Amino acid sequence: VSGFENLDKLFNPASLAVVGASSDRHKAGGRFVKGLIDGGYKGNIYPVNPNASEILGLRNYHNVLDLPEDIDLAIVSVPAQSVPQVIAECGIRRIKFAVVHSAGFSELGDEGKALERKTLRLASAGGTRIIGPNCMGLYVPRSHINTIVFGASITEPGGVAFVGQSGWVTENVVVLGNERGLHFSKIASIGNQADLTIEDMLGYLAEDPETRVITLYVEGLKRGADFLRIAKAASKQKPVIVWKAGRSKTGARAASSHTGSLAGDSSVFDAAAAQSGIVLAHDLDDLIDLMVGFSCPVWTRGRKVAILCESGGGAVSASDTAEAFDLEVPALSAVAQKEMVERLTGVIPPFAPPRNPVDLVWGPVDNPGRLFVDCGRIMLHETNAAVMLDYQRFDENLARQIADLRDETQKPIFMVPGYVTQTRPGMAVLTGLGVPTFDTPAKAIRVLAEMVRFSLRAGDVL
Amino acid sequence: VSGFENLDKLFNPASLAVVGASSDRHKAGGRFVKGLIDGGYKGNIYPVNPNASEILGLRNYHNVLDLPEDIDLAIVSVPAQSVPQVIAECGIRRIKFAVVHSAGFSELGDEGKALERKTLRLASAGGTRIIGPNCMGLYVPRSHINTIVFGASITEPGGVAFVGQSGWVTENVVVLGNERGLHFSKIASIGNQADLTIEDMLGYLAEDPETRVITLYVEGLKRGADFLRIAKAASKQKPVIVWKAGRSKTGARAASSHTGSLAGDSSVFDAAAAQSGIVLAHDLDDLIDLMVGFSCPVWTRGRKVAILCESGGGAVSASDTAEAFDLEVPALSAVAQKEMVERLTGVIPPFAPPRNPVDLVWGPVDNPGRLFVDCGRIMLHETNAAVMLDYQRFDENLARQIADLRDETQKPIFMVPGYVTQTRPGMAVLTGLGVPTFDTPAKAIRVLAEMVRFSLRAGDVL
Repeated sequence: VSGFENLDKLFNPASLAVVGASSDRHKAGGRFVKGLIDGGYKGNIYPVNPNASEILGLRNYHNVLDLPEDIDLAIVSVPAQSVPQVIAECGIRRIKFAVVHSAGFSELGDEGKALERKTLRLASAGGTRIIGPNCMGLYVPRSHINTIVFGASITEPGGVAFVGQSGWVTENVVVLGNERGLHFSKIASIGNQADLTIEDMLGYLAEDPETRVITLYVEGLKRGADFLRIAKAASKQKPVIVWKAGRSKTGARAASSHTGSLAGDSSVFDAAAAQSGIVLAHDLDDLIDLMVGFSCPVWTRGRKVAILCESGGGAVSASDTAEAFDLEVPALSAVAQKEMVERLTGVIPPFAPPRNPVDLVWGPVDNPGRLFVDCGRIMLHETNAAVMLDYQRFDENLARQIADLRDETQKPIFMVPGYVTQTRPGMAVLTGLGVPTFDTPAKAIRVLAEMVRFSLRAGDVL
Repeated sequence: VSGFENLDKLFNPASLAVVGASSDRHKAGGRFVKGLIDGGYKGNIYPVNPNASEILGLRNYHNVLDLPEDIDLAIVSVPAQSVPQVIAECGIRRIKFAVVHSAGFSELGDEGKALERKTLRLASAGGTRIIGPNCMGLYVPRSHINTIVFGASITEPGGVAFVGQSGWVTENVVVLGNERGLHFSKIASIGNQADLTIEDMLGYLAEDPETRVITLYVEGLKRGADFLRIAKAASKQKPVIVWKAGRSKTGARAASSHTGSLAGDSSVFDAAAAQSGIVLAHDLDDLIDLMVGFSCPVWTRGRKVAILCESGGGAVSASDTAEAFDLEVPALSAVAQKEMVERLTGVIPPFAPPRNPVDLVWGPVDNPGRLFVDCGRIMLHETNAAVMLDYQRFDENLARQIADLRDETQKPIFMVPGYVTQTRPGMAVLTGLGVPTFDTPAKAIRVLAEMVRFSLRAGDVL
């Protein structure tokens, strides 16, 4: 994958302008300036507004032409009719990128389409590349840029990238992702993708050393064949996870009035995506779950999974899902069973023979985390990954022990905390330590199965 | 459905004993007594322990024979070997029901099976009916009984009943159900179902006037044909929602060592369940979602759904799912479109023609709830149900307006709150008002589709 626009300065601009800036937090231009200041953006921020001298303590400029230095990025939030003028000025000032938040373009039909074409001609003439219009912009922890969710905390940078056409999906990825302990490299909402498209983003992220996992929300593809070609190449280097919406006739109609997208035939897309090595997500929470799973620092290369529970019901559900998704739950060897019985005798009440899944009957135990680690080690010796369920007495120290076991074995461990600790903050600690954590055993197994499929395929191809 | 054991005194005992009571909160018998006191159980509580005179301020009795009055229910938490003796004493005292929490029976193989048979013979001789063994017991808000989740708040009684073989699933139903704003009639964890089985529970709940929705977690069926016959009859009166686990070979093996259950062929079960009108759940969160949806005070009888969003992406996803699940998203009539344009002009920015789905472009609006109510009313005039998404500025007053619209139209309204209000407490308020609320549009539509299928079928049959 190469020959794509270098987007480094989009995601890490040395300085930027907010065109349509405001002191009013109820306006987008006000939220952007406030968000950049509060988020700790390190470069210069230039508010641009025809009727102000100062905005939130920053000197204001009446138009883009007045800016006192060359900048990398213009964030544009002005009425749609004014966008062409602003883009023309960006071109004159050789501003490389403009994120156009404004709506009222191709998503509204013919009149909007004409305005979008006009904007695009001016951008092309001036050498400015456009993200949007009708988009929510960027969330880039390393650069401390966040125009997507006002007030969202900017967390540690990490390896997960997301690009999506829907502001709603992108906002949720930021909020739910942060809640779940995900660490992001780059997030972009690209709206109508009038200029820079999902294909451009995908091509760039495939080569981006900060990005380990690429995730996308796609309503319509302007260049479907290109997309699949680029995704196939990218999938040889890192997972490309796609939630493809606009699958139904009504959904396609909605996509058209949402981001002016033309959605294609979804069954064709699914088949082609499978061939390209794309991992398909089915809903918002499924997308987040896949991000969580693939954020694990080690991936598995085999189908054998160890299931270790404090809950019989969890063991049953995990086993069912494993079989449905073509994973193996191999019975432990006699040696491993003997070793585990020795480890557990006298520690927990009598229990069924520890074959796999292993159901650790709940009981008062001094150090249940230790139990999970010791039994998990025995089980991982004969398997490729572990799913552990219902660990009811979570604390950070024990989470650390499980992360250590992962490092020692170099095999992924997925957790499903019991209801007592099934809080987003508790789950975030585990996921943040590289121990992906899920709401239910079935979800953990479903994601693990996708990881196995991706790894085995990549192993073939690479 | 009739001829089933009357379980009124199990779920609403006038007085009860905790056998194996303790002052130690780390023991089950201690948690049970404390939980009953804290939960506000109104009848007499008799702790039974051979070595105490008082437990948590209550007079203790050395054995069941010493109890000073006839009681309806014994909650038994003693070592497995002592259970037969306790059950024999319950029989002598003509105690109608014993919930046997103790594990170590058929789930452990031959020795445990013999102990379970012995217990059962004694129970049968004495006329005591057993729930369990190897179970978590009861959560009954109306009776203020909770032995399932220590410390769980006892919420207002409602119409949703749950019975399950897994303690883990049952605990999660209590915790997640309360979090989501569900109101329960009766919850029971029945473990090995050595005596009273899921079929008995189902038959009773079908006739229980307090129960509007029956939900079950089933690992194995002792009397599969009976179960389907009873479920079919029950489904003519109220929905029967079943999560059937132990579907795979490994899952069945796990179920066997969990609750001594023999799981049958799952494809046979699925086909028979569909014929019987059973609604099938696929995972823990799906089960909770179905409970939430069917807890709605009005059900729909038609396939036409109105989709009204503050999010284009949400509209696309909801539309996709509607088509996949055989719901219709009919375009609004010209009259309704005109009416809505008149209502919205000048209130929100220019937007795409309001056909259905309707995407209300986000913008600063004085009373967004009013907007949802006014547009929803227009749309519901031509449809059978509404799904509304991304209502970002939730407050209780506006939730009330949406509940009023439901009462006015007598059509269900499902909500998907935007990320800003996508908190469990906010969702619980809506669900508690009878406005079922879900994490994603796809989940809302999936549940609505099950409601439509059930209602149309029940309409045929009744």
